[in-house]
Amino acid sequence: MGFKARHYSEIRADEVTQEDVKGIKIRWLIAKSDGAPNFAMRYFEMAPGGFSPHHSHKWEHEVFVLDGDCIVVCGNEQKQVGPGWVVFIPPGAMHQFKNSGNEVLKFLCLVPHHE
Amino acid sequence: MGFKARHYSEIRADEVTQEDVKGIKIRWLIAKSDGAPNFAMRYFEMAPGGFSPHHSHKWEHEVFVLDGDCIVVCGNEQKQVGPGWVVFIPPGAMHQFKNSGNEVLKFLCLVPHHE
Repeated sequence: MGFKARHYSEIRADEVTQEDVKGIKIRWLIAKSDGAPNFAMRYFEMAPGGFSPHHSHKWEHEVFVLDGDCIVVCGNEQKQVGPGWVVFIPPGAMHQFKNSGNEVLKFLCLVPHHE
Repeated sequence: MGFKARHYSEIRADEVTQEDVKGIKIRWLIAKSDGAPNFAMRYFEMAPGGFSPHHSHKWEHEVFVLDGDCIVVCGNEQKQVGPGWVVFIPPGAMHQFKNSGNEVLKFLCLVPHHE
C-alpha cells in the first residue's frame, strides 16, 4: 500500500444502485484500501437526467467538476456549475447534484473516511 | 463558512517561492478558512521546466492531473503521467513532481490539514 499512479479509466466503475439515485457510476480512485489514511478520492459519472440523493450526512464533500453541466443544491441555495468549478458542501447540509446538460457529467468528490 | 461554489480561476493564484521549487503557482480552492474540517483542495499550475521539491513529510498527497505532462518520482519509482491520471503519495515517501512537457501542467493536490 504505497505509491499509486493510474489512469482513472483503469479503475473499476460501479453503478450506484440506491433508490433515490439515477444514472450514477462511481470509481474509488484513492481509497482506504490503497493506504490513504484520511480521505478518499472518488470519480463520478452521471448520465443526462441523472441525480444524486437529496440528503445530508455528517461529513463534508470537496468537489471538482471535470466535464458537463450540473445543478448543485445546498441548503436553500442552488448553483449552476460546469468544468473547472469547485464545490464545498459542509457537514450536515442538505445537498443534491443533478446533471443539467446533455452530456455525461464528470466530477471528483472527496470525502473523509467514514463508516 | 458554508456552501462554496466558484470557478477555480476566481481563486487567487500565489507564486510558490521556496528555494527548491521552480515555476509553481498554487490556488487554495478549499481551505480550512472555508470551514473544511479535514483536508484542503489545492490547484497547482507548473510552467514548462518547473518542479516541486524532492522531499518528504508526514502527510499524504492525493493528486488528479488535469492537463499537461508530468514525471512523478516517489521513493525508487518514477512514472510518466498526464490528464486523467490519479496519484497517491503515501505519508513519509520522498517525492517530486516535474513538468515533462511544453505546456503548463495543471493538477489538483489534496492534503489533510497540517501545521
